[in-house]
Amino acid sequence: MLVSADIAPVPASQVDEPDSLVARFGADRPLVLDSGATLAPWQIAYQSYGTLNADRSNAILICHALTGDQHVASRNPITGKPGWWENIVGPGLPIDTDRFFVLCSNVIGSCMGTTGPASLNAATGEPWGLSFPLVTIRDMVRAQAMLLDHLGIAQLFAVVGGSMGGMQVLQWAASYPDRVFAAMPIATGPIHSAQNIAFHEVGRQAIMADPDWRGGHYLQAGVRPAKGLAVARMGAHITYLSEAALHRKFGRRLQDRDAPTFSFDADFQVESYLRYQGESFVERFDANSYLYITRAMDYFDLAADHGGVLANAFRGIKTRFCVASFSSDWLFPTPNSRAIVHALNAAAASVSFVEIESDKGHDAFLLDEPVFFATMRGFLDSAARARGL
Amino acid sequence: MLVSADIAPVPASQVDEPDSLVARFGADRPLVLDSGATLAPWQIAYQSYGTLNADRSNAILICHALTGDQHVASRNPITGKPGWWENIVGPGLPIDTDRFFVLCSNVIGSCMGTTGPASLNAATGEPWGLSFPLVTIRDMVRAQAMLLDHLGIAQLFAVVGGSMGGMQVLQWAASYPDRVFAAMPIATGPIHSAQNIAFHEVGRQAIMADPDWRGGHYLQAGVRPAKGLAVARMGAHITYLSEAALHRKFGRRLQDRDAPTFSFDADFQVESYLRYQGESFVERFDANSYLYITRAMDYFDLAADHGGVLANAFRGIKTRFCVASFSSDWLFPTPNSRAIVHALNAAAASVSFVEIESDKGHDAFLLDEPVFFATMRGFLDSAARARGL
Repeated sequence: MLVSADIAPVPASQVDEPDSLVARFGADRPLVLDSGATLAPWQIAYQSYGTLNADRSNAILICHALTGDQHVASRNPITGKPGWWENIVGPGLPIDTDRFFVLCSNVIGSCMGTTGPASLNAATGEPWGLSFPLVTIRDMVRAQAMLLDHLGIAQLFAVVGGSMGGMQVLQWAASYPDRVFAAMPIATGPIHSAQNIAFHEVGRQAIMADPDWRGGHYLQAGVRPAKGLAVARMGAHITYLSEAALHRKFGRRLQDRDAPTFSFDADFQVESYLRYQGESFVERFDANSYLYITRAMDYFDLAADHGGVLANAFRGIKTRFCVASFSSDWLFPTPNSRAIVHALNAAAASVSFVEIESDKGHDAFLLDEPVFFATMRGFLDSAARARGL
Repeated sequence: MLVSADIAPVPASQVDEPDSLVARFGADRPLVLDSGATLAPWQIAYQSYGTLNADRSNAILICHALTGDQHVASRNPITGKPGWWENIVGPGLPIDTDRFFVLCSNVIGSCMGTTGPASLNAATGEPWGLSFPLVTIRDMVRAQAMLLDHLGIAQLFAVVGGSMGGMQVLQWAASYPDRVFAAMPIATGPIHSAQNIAFHEVGRQAIMADPDWRGGHYLQAGVRPAKGLAVARMGAHITYLSEAALHRKFGRRLQDRDAPTFSFDADFQVESYLRYQGESFVERFDANSYLYITRAMDYFDLAADHGGVLANAFRGIKTRFCVASFSSDWLFPTPNSRAIVHALNAAAASVSFVEIESDKGHDAFLLDEPVFFATMRGFLDSAARARGL
């Protein structure tokens, strides 16, 4: 039996409401994982904006990135900061909450209300820690599909996401093609590259090298591997930017001083900035969740799941796609997006593609990029007309 | 008074001799550092190959990179492995030890026999640790110049080096233009970029986050921050390669298994490779030296030292230059080399430039790159004829 959350859509006027909705699934609705493990009970935390229309046809699912969460367009209750896509999602914005019902759920394995390694294992009463089963991008999407079942939404008008969110968008189209009218994978790729796996592995090793990680069972010990997680974040953060963006923002400017101190202080502004990124991240994120979610990204290989041919993931699909990349993104460079487009072409799918000129690197998908905004607005508007919205 | 090493050149037949030569400098010959500190006594360890000619005009100084050492073309006594440039330096090779007297010294601040933070501070009888003064690229070059004085070599026929070695080459030309007949800075730049500083800072934070670092005084405690140093090396190692090289070498291939284990084992070959890189590095390198030398690179800004105009570093210089970059090097991308070339042009210096097509990333300068070898051979041969060698 489902222990259900209130499934009434949240009115757009409540976008400042910080608390998440939670859908709880009992032993009768386990989450069956790619690893073969099953998870029950489990829950998924989500946020919604706008109003679901009468025939439940105007829902847009936003899929968040590695360290993202469901607080897309409302204040984050942990950090007190605005939602991470408030420039995209809201009344009159590219994802227009006056027109669409917008959903975003925290991915399985994360730490913002959805079941993950920091959750209590009902069987033991202890936090899961490393006994939590490994999850995949497909598991994340499977959990989201169960949330949609729970909410009575048979088909999404659109599914949209950047980076790991874009992987979920691709997986949605591959796993549930009939449930996705339009799809927009942004700054993403059909696999995680060797270089990206390598960067993730460095981050994981940084966490595991912290003695406060305690083999993953730090919560029971009342400690947290804050230093290791901060180092992991610092390294990853560099990959989200670009050399040009770092040069423009910081260059070699010194921090509050006229000359180098000849010490290991943060002489350079870029050092101070990175240290801040590391320190603020550990206040909001669970180290084991970081391990699990980076692993899920590493395992992502949509072609391998379809006989080694990416186009096979999309044969006969009716979904219309818009693929977007950013010119200075070196984490998911444009050739990744082109590979998606070529596969969709080979599958005779409807697809448009744009590479947006930007020096902001991978993070450009979170920042003010007018051409990107216009692209998304145009794609969704055209798709909405086709859908009769 | 100098406590001198035997300054007789090592015959080429002795290239398998693992022990280094050491030049020791007493209180009357302190090393005066950019920070204002002075170091005395101090010593510099070096290797030589080939024979110094009668008028001492055939010496080539090779400057090593961040974690390099003086064992250019002979077995490394710590690792037991061949020298790091045995494909470049030897009889009949591009740096021909039948023709040239080749020197390479361990940089000040390092840990292979030259004074550094792991050395004993004569004043205390304890390892320096973090009380060792910060050093700069110019300090490294200043120490090398004192070694040359000691060896009675007034002018180098050539100074050659890649990466941080290339920074030293540029500094040699700027500090001692009359002592350098020919110079070859490879895969380097006139500054360390914000992105490169950022990567270094992550490595330093990884080391300092290791509780076995003990505030830099781990040697006294009989421990070493091996995990932190391994993480630092893993992250840095990615920047030495390229996405294409990682894809070609490893791709998403699994390590000794047919399917992912759904665990945090090193499923992917690239993970196993990186872990090995980290583990083997800590066996041969001192963590504090890593802090000091990365800092020296971060501080490098040759233009800033010359009124903000790089060309001012080279006004009136007679040295002939050959600048080389590699197309897939993203640590020191080709625009860095072009900036050097433009400054040399503005200073009316003699300079040739080549960008070598390679997918091997920054490390290409250490690998078999026939066009690179031919370029170096041609440049040195032409310069040798001009020098009357």
